[in-house]
Amino acid sequence: MRLKPLVATLVATCSLALSSAAHADEGMWQPHQLPELESILKAKGLEISVDSISKLTEFPMNAVISLGGCTASFVSPKGLVVTNHHCIYGSVQYNSTPENNILENGFLAKTPAEDLPAAPGSRVYVTETVTNVTDKVISGTNELSAKARYDALEKNQKALVAQCEADASYRCNVYSFHGGLEFYLIKSLEIKDVRLAYAPAMGVGKYGGDIDNWMWPRHTGDFGFYRAYVGKDGKPAEYSEDNVPYVPESYLSVSAKGVQEGDFVMVTGYPGRTNRYRIAAEVDYVFNDSYPKARMHNTKYVSLIEENSEDGSKARIAYESTIAGYNNYIKNYGSMIESFKKGTMFERKKQFEQELTSWINSDSERKQRYGNVLNELSALVAQSQEHSERDRMVGYVHRSQMISTARRLYRLAYEKQKPNSERESGYQERDLPRIKSGLERMSRRFDANVDKAILLHFLEQYAALPKAERFSEIDKVFALENGFDKAKQSALLDEMYAKSTLDNEIVRNSLFEQTLSQLNQSQDPFMQYAKAIFTVMKAEEDKSKALAGKLQAARPELMSAIIAFNKAQNKPVYADANSTLRVTYGTVGGYSPQDGLVATPFTSLEGLLAKNTDIDPFNAPKKLQEQIKAKLYGDYTGGMNTVPVNFLSNVDTTGGNSGSPTLNGKAELVGLLFDGVYESIIGDWDYNPELNRSIHVDSRYMLWVMDKVDNAQNLLDEMKIVK
Amino acid sequence: MRLKPLVATLVATCSLALSSAAHADEGMWQPHQLPELESILKAKGLEISVDSISKLTEFPMNAVISLGGCTASFVSPKGLVVTNHHCIYGSVQYNSTPENNILENGFLAKTPAEDLPAAPGSRVYVTETVTNVTDKVISGTNELSAKARYDALEKNQKALVAQCEADASYRCNVYSFHGGLEFYLIKSLEIKDVRLAYAPAMGVGKYGGDIDNWMWPRHTGDFGFYRAYVGKDGKPAEYSEDNVPYVPESYLSVSAKGVQEGDFVMVTGYPGRTNRYRIAAEVDYVFNDSYPKARMHNTKYVSLIEENSEDGSKARIAYESTIAGYNNYIKNYGSMIESFKKGTMFERKKQFEQELTSWINSDSERKQRYGNVLNELSALVAQSQEHSERDRMVGYVHRSQMISTARRLYRLAYEKQKPNSERESGYQERDLPRIKSGLERMSRRFDANVDKAILLHFLEQYAALPKAERFSEIDKVFALENGFDKAKQSALLDEMYAKSTLDNEIVRNSLFEQTLSQLNQSQDPFMQYAKAIFTVMKAEEDKSKALAGKLQAARPELMSAIIAFNKAQNKPVYADANSTLRVTYGTVGGYSPQDGLVATPFTSLEGLLAKNTDIDPFNAPKKLQEQIKAKLYGDYTGGMNTVPVNFLSNVDTTGGNSGSPTLNGKAELVGLLFDGVYESIIGDWDYNPELNRSIHVDSRYMLWVMDKVDNAQNLLDEMKIVK
Repeated sequence: MRLKPLVATLVATCSLALSSAAHADEGMWQPHQLPELESILKAKGLEISVDSISKLTEFPMNAVISLGGCTASFVSPKGLVVTNHHCIYGSVQYNSTPENNILENGFLAKTPAEDLPAAPGSRVYVTETVTNVTDKVISGTNELSAKARYDALEKNQKALVAQCEADASYRCNVYSFHGGLEFYLIKSLEIKDVRLAYAPAMGVGKYGGDIDNWMWPRHTGDFGFYRAYVGKDGKPAEYSEDNVPYVPESYLSVSAKGVQEGDFVMVTGYPGRTNRYRIAAEVDYVFNDSYPKARMHNTKYVSLIEENSEDGSKARIAYESTIAGYNNYIKNYGSMIESFKKGTMFERKKQFEQELTSWINSDSERKQRYGNVLNELSALVAQSQEHSERDRMVGYVHRSQMISTARRLYRLAYEKQKPNSERESGYQERDLPRIKSGLERMSRRFDANVDKAILLHFLEQYAALPKAERFSEIDKVFALENGFDKAKQSALLDEMYAKSTLDNEIVRNSLFEQTLSQLNQSQDPFMQYAKAIFTVMKAEEDKSKALAGKLQAARPELMSAIIAFNKAQNKPVYADANSTLRVTYGTVGGYSPQDGLVATPFTSLEGLLAKNTDIDPFNAPKKLQEQIKAKLYGDYTGGMNTVPVNFLSNVDTTGGNSGSPTLNGKAELVGLLFDGVYESIIGDWDYNPELNRSIHVDSRYMLWVMDKVDNAQNLLDEMKIVK
Repeated sequence: MRLKPLVATLVATCSLALSSAAHADEGMWQPHQLPELESILKAKGLEISVDSISKLTEFPMNAVISLGGCTASFVSPKGLVVTNHHCIYGSVQYNSTPENNILENGFLAKTPAEDLPAAPGSRVYVTETVTNVTDKVISGTNELSAKARYDALEKNQKALVAQCEADASYRCNVYSFHGGLEFYLIKSLEIKDVRLAYAPAMGVGKYGGDIDNWMWPRHTGDFGFYRAYVGKDGKPAEYSEDNVPYVPESYLSVSAKGVQEGDFVMVTGYPGRTNRYRIAAEVDYVFNDSYPKARMHNTKYVSLIEENSEDGSKARIAYESTIAGYNNYIKNYGSMIESFKKGTMFERKKQFEQELTSWINSDSERKQRYGNVLNELSALVAQSQEHSERDRMVGYVHRSQMISTARRLYRLAYEKQKPNSERESGYQERDLPRIKSGLERMSRRFDANVDKAILLHFLEQYAALPKAERFSEIDKVFALENGFDKAKQSALLDEMYAKSTLDNEIVRNSLFEQTLSQLNQSQDPFMQYAKAIFTVMKAEEDKSKALAGKLQAARPELMSAIIAFNKAQNKPVYADANSTLRVTYGTVGGYSPQDGLVATPFTSLEGLLAKNTDIDPFNAPKKLQEQIKAKLYGDYTGGMNTVPVNFLSNVDTTGGNSGSPTLNGKAELVGLLFDGVYESIIGDWDYNPELNRSIHVDSRYMLWVMDKVDNAQNLLDEMKIVK
C-alpha cells in the first residue's frame, strides 16, 4: 500500500527542488489554481463548474476530509465517511477479538447505535479555511540566518497555530509550499468521536495482501466506512453515548454506473510528500547512496527479527506489523532504484538545470537575483551529506525501542521545562496524547531479544565507522572505545536489558510524568544513555537546524526562479505534496509495464475468482465466490459483462491520497484511490506519463459487495446512489 | 526451455488415453492426415498445396530434420542447418575454452573450412520413409498376453529395425501411435559429421536465461547454425577432413518480412511426448500425487546439492547443469499443478468418459467390443499405481551416480551374453556409443560428497516405507533391517565411497569391457550392490513388462473406440506426440495470462534494451545495444517501427519441437519455435485455446543479428532471403 506520509519523510528530510513543468495530467494542484486549468479540465471532461472545485467550502470539496495520513469523504447526510479498508484497519483490529474476529469476518452496524468506537486517536479533519500567512511567517526572518532563522520561522508558525487552536474545535497547521516560498495556515474542524460503521471481510478489504501490494492486476476491495459524531451542540466532542452523527455541509453521490476506459476522473485528497523539484545532486545521492543502503539495512533488519523470533511465537506476532512495514519499504525502494536505473530522471534534471541557468543568465536582473542560487543550494546539499553514513548508523542504533523510548521521555521532560509555546514541535501540550499512545503501543510491539539483536547488529555497524565519525558519548556507554567485540558488547547489552524496566508499560507511563531532574537520577541504563548523549545530540540537532535555516533561505529562491521560468513559458507550477488538499485529474486507462505486456484498465469478478485459493491473502468469503459463480451482478456492471473490481488511471497521487474519492466529471464518486502500480513508485520523484498509474477500487464493486455479499442495505439507503 | 522428450517420459511411463476431439488449432498432425484438414488450412491462410506438406519427400517437408531431441531445417543448398541456440548449446560448449570462450562470445565460421566439429554424438536425421508396419509388429501377438505379448512386440520391432539398419547410412525406429493401435517404421538418413557454423553470443542466444525460461515477455535470440557433412560419395560418414557439405533435396527460404498479428503459421517438427488421451484416473494420480511429490523431492534434491557444494566450487560447477535441469522440472511441475487446480481438465475427462460410454452402450455391437474397455484399463492403471511410493523412492535411491553407473555396467554385461537382436532395448550394439559417452560424461558431472548426501537422504526416505514395501536385498546392503540411523548409514556410505573406484573414468571404461562373471567377482561395493539387487529388480521389471503387455492390449482398444466416436461426429483425431514428424498450424496472436493483463504478440529491440542490465542473463553484446540505440533496423522491420524479437502463436507444440521452423502460408521460414509460455506447460496434457501459446524467435531478429551485429554475410549470401 502507499506509504503513509509521516513515515515517507524518513529519508527525504528537507523539501524542495528542480523539475521541469507539468506534463499532461501530471500535477497535484491546490484548489485555488484550478481556474488556471479550466480549458484543459473542460476539454478532458469536467462537467461541473471549475469554480466549485476551487472553493473548499463548496460542494464537492467540502465533502473531502482528512483522517490524518489518509483521505476520506462524506457520503451521507448522517456523517457516513468512506475511505480505504487499510485506513480503517487499525480500528477494525482494535474492535476485533478471538471470539468476534471482525477483522477476519468483517463488521456491519445495522443501525448507527451499533457503530463501534474507532481506535483511540482516530480523527476526522474537515478543512474549513486556508489562509496565506507567508508574510506573518517570514516576518522578521529575512535579516536572520542559519539557526536563528530556523527558530524564528518555527516561532512564528507556532504562534499562528496556537492562536488558531484557541477554539478547541479546531486543529491548525502551517504548511510550507515550494520549500518555504509560501506558507498557508489551514484550519480544520477536528471531529474526535469517530466510529466504525462497516468493514468488509479481510478477504475483500485486503484481498491479495502484501503479495499484490503495489501490483497490477489487482482485486482488492479496499473500502470501509466510518461515521463522524459530534456533541448535541454540533461541535466536536470526545466520545460520548449522547453524541449525534455529524451533519456535513455536503456529501458525495456514489455512482453505480462507474467509468469506462478513456473517461475523465479527478482525485481530491491529501497527498503526503513528493520530491519533484529536488536538484540533480540530491537525486544522485538519494538513488545511488541513500536508497540502496536503506534497502540493504532494512533487509537485514527484517532478517534479524525473523532469526530472533520463531514463526508464530509471541515475539514474532509482536513484530508482524513492523516486518510488513519494513518489507513495504524494501519493495518501495527496490522499485525506485530499478526505475531510476532504467529511466532518464537524472539526465533530465541536469538538462533542466542547464536550461534554467541559461535563462537566468540571459537577463542581467535575473542573473543578479538568481545567478548563484543553484550553486548555493548545491553547497548546502553537499554539506547536509557530509556525515550521512554516521547519521544513518546512529539512526539505526536509535531505532532500538528501549533507546527511542528513553530518548523520547527524556526529551519530553527537557521540553516541559519551557513554556508550551517555546517547546520543540512534537512535544507541545497538543502532542502529548500521541506520545502517550506511542508508549502504550510499545507493549504490543516489543520483544527484548529481538530489540537486543537489532541493537547489537547496528552497534557493530556504527563501531566500524572511523573514530572521528563516532561520538565518544555513545562509545563510552557501549564500551566501544577499542572497537566492537561481539561477545563483550552482547554481554553488556544483556546486562542493560536485564536491568532496564522500560519494557514495563506502568513504568513508562510513570516516567511520562517525571521531571528532567527526576529522570537524571534514573538508574535505568537506557535512560542513562539518553542523558549521556543528550547534549551532543542536541548540538547535532542545532547544527542541522542551522543548515535547515540556510536551506529555508536558498530553496524558496530557487523555486521562485523555477516558477518565473515556467511562467515565461506560460506553464503553471504545482507545489510538491505536503499533506494539504490537492486536486489531480486524468483519464481511466491501462499502460504497458513492459515490452510485450499490456495492463488493461479493469479487473473483474471472474479474475478475482481465478486468483482465489482460499488461502490468505487470496481467500474471498464463500458467499462472494458463490455470487460470482452465479453471475449475480445486479445493477453494478455499468454496461460491462461483469462487475469491475479495480481500475487504473493516470492521476498523479502519492501516500496520503489513500482513501481519496475518485470523481467523474459530475463529481460523483466512481471509485476510491488506494494504491499505485509498481512502476509508479518513483512517481514521488518523477511523474512518467507512460508508467504512472494509480489503482482505484471501483464504486460498482463496492456497492455490489455491500448489496450482494454483506447486505449493507441500511447504508445504501442513506447514501445517494446514481443508477 | 522445453523439456527434452527423453527426459519428459520420466513420470509418464505408459502412453495413451482419453481426450475430447481437437479444438480449433489444437493438434499435432501426421503429415498424411493433412489433406483431411485442407479446407481449414486453406481458410486460415495456407497458400501452397496441402499435398506438398503431406509428403515427406517433397518441399517443404524434406527440409525439416531431426537432431534427436530437437528439430531443425535446411536453409541453404550447402547443408546449412538452422535450429535453436539451446539445441546446439552442447556443441558450442564443447568447442569453448577459457582462451577462446565462444559460448560467451559467439562463433562464426567465415568459410565452411572454419566450421568446428559438433559435440561427439551430434547427428542430423533426415526422414526418408514412413511405413505402416502395424501388421508386422502385431503379427502373432494377438493370442499372447502379459509379458509374452510384450516380448513378442519388442522382438518384432527389433527385427524390423535391424533389417532397416542393414544399410549403415540409416537409423530406423518403430513408433507406436495411439498407444499401440498403429506402428510406423521410420527410416532416416543419419548424417554423422555435423559441424558448428555459427552461434550468436550467449547474451543473444540465451538472453534472459533461466529467469525468462517459459516466460513472456521474451527477448531470446534462440537460434544457431550447424552444417551437415557427408562423404565425397554423398553418403553419411564419420567426421573427416575430406567430407563435403551435404546437398539437401530442398531447403527453406527465410523471410525478412516476417509475420503480423493474425497471420497463419504452421510448425513442422518432432514433438516428443504428450498425454492428451489419458483417462481420468491417470490424470487424478499424476496431478494429485505424482507431480506434487516429484516437485517436492526434486526441490529437496537441488537443496541437497547446494548444501553440499560451495558456490563457485568445483563440485558446484559439476552440478550446475543438473541443478538447472531439476529447476526446470520444478518450474514445469509447479506450472502444471497450478494450471490443473485452476482448470477443468479432470471434470472434462470425466464427462468425456461418460459421453463415450453412453455412445458405446447405445449400440450392441459397439457394446460387445468396447463395453468393458474403460473398466479394464482403469483396473490396469490402478495396478500400475499399487507400489508407486516404493517405486518412487527406489528410483531416487538409484539416481545416485555410483549406483546408476554400477547398475548400467552390470546390466550391459548381462545383456551382452545374448545375441544382439535379443538384447534389451538400450543395450544393443547400436546403443553402445551412447552408454560409453554417458560413462565419460560422469567425470564432469560428479562429486562424491554430493552424491553421498543425496543417496543418504533418499535411503532415509526409502527406509521409512513399510517393511512389506521394501526389498530385503536393498535393506541388507545398506543395513536397513532395523531402520535408518543417520550416523550409522552415513558411516557405511563413507566406507563404500572410499572403497569404490567407479568415480575413476579409466576404471569405468575398463568395466565397460568386462563380462558378467568378471563383474560378479568385483570387490567394488556399488558393483556388489548392483549384483545383489539384480535378480529382484529384474523380476520387478518383468512384472511391469507383463503389465505393459496388458496395457498394450487394452489401450489400443480404447483408442480405437475414441477414434470411432470422433469419426461418428466427423472429427479427425491426431495421435499423441511420439517424436515423429508432425505438423501443427495456427495464428500469430497474444493472450491474457491473467485478468487485467494482456500479452501482446511481439516483443521489440527496444524491449530487449530496457531489460538489459549487462549482468548475465540480461547481458546483450555491446554492439547489439549500440545498433538498437542507433535504430539501425535495416530491412528487417516488416513494416513495424522496430525489429520484432520474439512472437507468440497458438500452434500446438511440446518438447522436441525446439528448433522447428515456423512457416508462413508460402512455407517460408518466419521464425523458429523455441518455447511455450508458462500457462501452456500443462498443454502436454490438455490444450487450452485461451492460454496455449508457443514462443518463436522472429526471423527478422535472426537476420538482423546476423547482418547488423555478427556480420554473418557469408551465411546470408548462401541462404535465400525473401525481402
